[in-house]
Amino acid sequence: MNRAIIVGNRAKKAVLRAVEEIEPWLAERAEVRVDLNLDSPVLAGEVDFALVLGGDGSVLGAARKLAPQGVPLLGINVGKFGFLTESTVDDYKAVLTDVLEGRYTAAERMMLACVLERDGEEVLSTVALNDAVVSRTALSRIITIDFHVDGELVTTYRSDGLIVATPVGSTAHSLASGGPIVHPDMDAIVVTPISPHTLSNRPLVLPGHLKVTLEAREWAQRPALTVDGQVNRELREGDLVRVQRAPKPLKLIQTGRNVFFETLRSKLDWRGQPRYVK
Amino acid sequence: MNRAIIVGNRAKKAVLRAVEEIEPWLAERAEVRVDLNLDSPVLAGEVDFALVLGGDGSVLGAARKLAPQGVPLLGINVGKFGFLTESTVDDYKAVLTDVLEGRYTAAERMMLACVLERDGEEVLSTVALNDAVVSRTALSRIITIDFHVDGELVTTYRSDGLIVATPVGSTAHSLASGGPIVHPDMDAIVVTPISPHTLSNRPLVLPGHLKVTLEAREWAQRPALTVDGQVNRELREGDLVRVQRAPKPLKLIQTGRNVFFETLRSKLDWRGQPRYVK
Amino acid sequence: MNRAIIVGNRAKKAVLRAVEEIEPWLAERAEVRVDLNLDSPVLAGEVDFALVLGGDGSVLGAARKLAPQGVPLLGINVGKFGFLTESTVDDYKAVLTDVLEGRYTAAERMMLACVLERDGEEVLSTVALNDAVVSRTALSRIITIDFHVDGELVTTYRSDGLIVATPVGSTAHSLASGGPIVHPDMDAIVVTPISPHTLSNRPLVLPGHLKVTLEAREWAQRPALTVDGQVNRELREGDLVRVQRAPKPLKLIQTGRNVFFETLRSKLDWRGQPRYVK
Amino acid sequence: MNRAIIVGNRAKKAVLRAVEEIEPWLAERAEVRVDLNLDSPVLAGEVDFALVLGGDGSVLGAARKLAPQGVPLLGINVGKFGFLTESTVDDYKAVLTDVLEGRYTAAERMMLACVLERDGEEVLSTVALNDAVVSRTALSRIITIDFHVDGELVTTYRSDGLIVATPVGSTAHSLASGGPIVHPDMDAIVVTPISPHTLSNRPLVLPGHLKVTLEAREWAQRPALTVDGQVNRELREGDLVRVQRAPKPLKLIQTGRNVFFETLRSKLDWRGQPRYVK
Repeated sequence: MNRAIIVGNRAKKAVLRAVEEIEPWLAERAEVRVDLNLDSPVLAGEVDFALVLGGDGSVLGAARKLAPQGVPLLGINVGKFGFLTESTVDDYKAVLTDVLEGRYTAAERMMLACVLERDGEEVLSTVALNDAVVSRTALSRIITIDFHVDGELVTTYRSDGLIVATPVGSTAHSLASGGPIVHPDMDAIVVTPISPHTLSNRPLVLPGHLKVTLEAREWAQRPALTVDGQVNRELREGDLVRVQRAPKPLKLIQTGRNVFFETLRSKLDWRGQPRYVK
Repeated sequence: MNRAIIVGNRAKKAVLRAVEEIEPWLAERAEVRVDLNLDSPVLAGEVDFALVLGGDGSVLGAARKLAPQGVPLLGINVGKFGFLTESTVDDYKAVLTDVLEGRYTAAERMMLACVLERDGEEVLSTVALNDAVVSRTALSRIITIDFHVDGELVTTYRSDGLIVATPVGSTAHSLASGGPIVHPDMDAIVVTPISPHTLSNRPLVLPGHLKVTLEAREWAQRPALTVDGQVNRELREGDLVRVQRAPKPLKLIQTGRNVFFETLRSKLDWRGQPRYVK
Repeated sequence: MNRAIIVGNRAKKAVLRAVEEIEPWLAERAEVRVDLNLDSPVLAGEVDFALVLGGDGSVLGAARKLAPQGVPLLGINVGKFGFLTESTVDDYKAVLTDVLEGRYTAAERMMLACVLERDGEEVLSTVALNDAVVSRTALSRIITIDFHVDGELVTTYRSDGLIVATPVGSTAHSLASGGPIVHPDMDAIVVTPISPHTLSNRPLVLPGHLKVTLEAREWAQRPALTVDGQVNRELREGDLVRVQRAPKPLKLIQTGRNVFFETLRSKLDWRGQPRYVK
Repeated sequence: MNRAIIVGNRAKKAVLRAVEEIEPWLAERAEVRVDLNLDSPVLAGEVDFALVLGGDGSVLGAARKLAPQGVPLLGINVGKFGFLTESTVDDYKAVLTDVLEGRYTAAERMMLACVLERDGEEVLSTVALNDAVVSRTALSRIITIDFHVDGELVTTYRSDGLIVATPVGSTAHSLASGGPIVHPDMDAIVVTPISPHTLSNRPLVLPGHLKVTLEAREWAQRPALTVDGQVNRELREGDLVRVQRAPKPLKLIQTGRNVFFETLRSKLDWRGQPRYVK
């Protein structure tokens, strides 16, 4: 692990300050390349890991580029503790020392392959670390989505939208919409409707090998596809959104500092003394 | 009750057929005027009631025009049973006979007055029978809304949107988003966040005399106001959405055929033999 | 307001310490009687207010005895901030000075009258400030409850139990079971099923003047009635639990220190900077 | 597949009628033994499959005895369609012919091993096809449960109870308490609190290889353990409830008549035309 690439959001001053501090320190100990926006393609053989400086949003963006290349990712948060970052910037020396000296594991985090198919052709093909969401962009009305699993029509959702999430994504938009917290080690697809009008349309957890297809059926609401909250496409009549497990998972470098249940307690206020309604 | 106006959605064939059948029958028994779109203003002194032929959506549209004039509304559904319609078209003779002969009550249904205030001026002022919703129109990201009650900042919601509903509207978008079912006789304002990211942001039921204000705080998501799912305005920075009880309620004519709990059982599948998970 | 009775849980040392400190201070300024358990009946003409030293649980117990007599109640919390207490003990001098000098309001909090009727006779009759709950006492199986409103069978719940709550009680067991937060000024009855097996059985908010009746229909689960979590009775076949608004509300003394929305923010972690899922 | 044992609830007349009809028919085609209560132990080498006549409850009871022996189970429902039964009794000839002639698959359904440990000794050890639940038996008050995963204290739940379910059990008590629907092919443990007082305590889905431990911490509520709603034990101070994947899954015989999503649509009213709130 002695070839690193540093990635981050160059629009954020805190990120630039972190780069200024960490890059020289790391350059004394490893080959370092800085490509904040990942403008050039990164190949697996060229770097041993990518250091993402930023929050969970930056990790999402980097993961979509790095995971398909098999490049492991280490997240160091310039702000607060996150689900996907291993530590905050205060702690970078200890974390990086561990990584450089081999004291880490590369946890695999399932990703989703999302394809937007129009007239039999792929007009978008990307991966997602959190989720693919079909929702309306027009004003406050419900959309209708046929939901298929391995070719079988499971149900027709009438809702504000439908979220197809990874276990990692289960604590993001899906959780806010009533979905369960799914352990990130799992191989699972979480399907959570947003404000479903059929009240028994509860969240579904499916095995990772199943293939799901979403087909919007009404167009006045201008349904659109959003991947990880970052990639967007408006849908047209007849479009199919196909989602399945991506061929390669994300390799997330862990040194044991950020543990799933601890993050839950912290982020969802489960920590220490539980809080009571009364 | 011998002066009626017939209202409905002229784009629907079933409505036109219903008008063709009901108008002559009613004309033999009362003064009838047909103005499907309510193109001319209707004044309280001119008609005794409006007969709305259509579903709950048509009642919503008509109510926003008729309630401020104090004109009572009778809904006859050309499709299925609805929350706001008194009967289906099969039963129109019995219902209208009851109404013409005085065997009815005029239930009062609270409405909301919604004002969009920009730079101190009212750029939209309307009433709502169901709800006023502030939600995003851009793609799948959360919006931030400061929520005030009688001038006090209650909380800042980070969510897909915020619904302010009447009791009548509690069984529409608010229910799908996790809100309670509020009896339509009540004088109450229901506040339900859509996919709130603070998991303890549960739906609120407030007394009808309180005044609520919504102020969006981030603009990348292009938040918009939607009233009854039918009136829309994009919001700009600094806009205030003020919602309070409308001065006049809707007068909804009831002959006893459509009773609230019966509609619940039917619409939500609570009827007859309850359905079990297992 | 110069005749007070001091009430509290004598099993708690913090309460006894608070009595030792507050009683002499108050005795210099008013007539004071101490009856921690309310062993003697308290009549409206004899005292001007009751000072309850303790948490929300102590207020619940005192309210059931004091509200029917019309005696106003002032709660001072010996522990943390509560929904029903006006301040913590640190602040007692300021609060009591305000009360003694007339700078207070007596907010009315709706209570429920709960009657357990067996073979046409009342075998229990009490009031509730929070809720009346019918639930199982036998092991983990669902119970079946016929739920009537003003004599009409609304639905048959199959669930772990059914909660009938006041607005004050809406933030207790009902909230934990998915019910809405109802503003304490309202005149409303909240009906929330616990783990309902019909997934569309959502919480109901009814006008305060309606009368509800619960009748358990299966007996293997040994259903029981619990009032405010403090009064319990096992139910027998044919028993009816009748719940309606109590004739007298609780008069809760408020000096403006504890405001509803502030308590919400504090208790539900809505305060200050909202907490995000991600 | 020519040695069968017939199992069922002898207290139900419909079961006895089904036995009378099916036993002779099956005896002409296979070796049949009838042991409705499974009074004698069934060994894997002695029978090829068990035919359970009854509903999901009967399958639960039989599975706890048969799965540890590796005996495959075929459920035929004497009432309605169930999640665990392959067909209703009307269809028995076709189903059994398929099974006898080898046209079936034996789906594996994860089970839980539940141990109640007291003072270091196992006082109960059983398996569960649906769930292990720790809940109160005393009246309406919350219980406190420390929840550990692989030895780590995840959180302390204050709730009416805590459900640890299999994927099969996810559509039973867990679903009623707000848990997700987990596909029965999965290897997962679902942890769902009942009416949790910390509102962010959402349902958890864990990988099947993790070991969970529940320890009640307050005793006034007389917490108890219930397995599959059929086996009960009161808990004492210091008791540990240990739950993990059972060494052997249930082998459930499937001929393709009862498919998971179809059962969902039917049981949860997702079928055919979806039902709308409005």
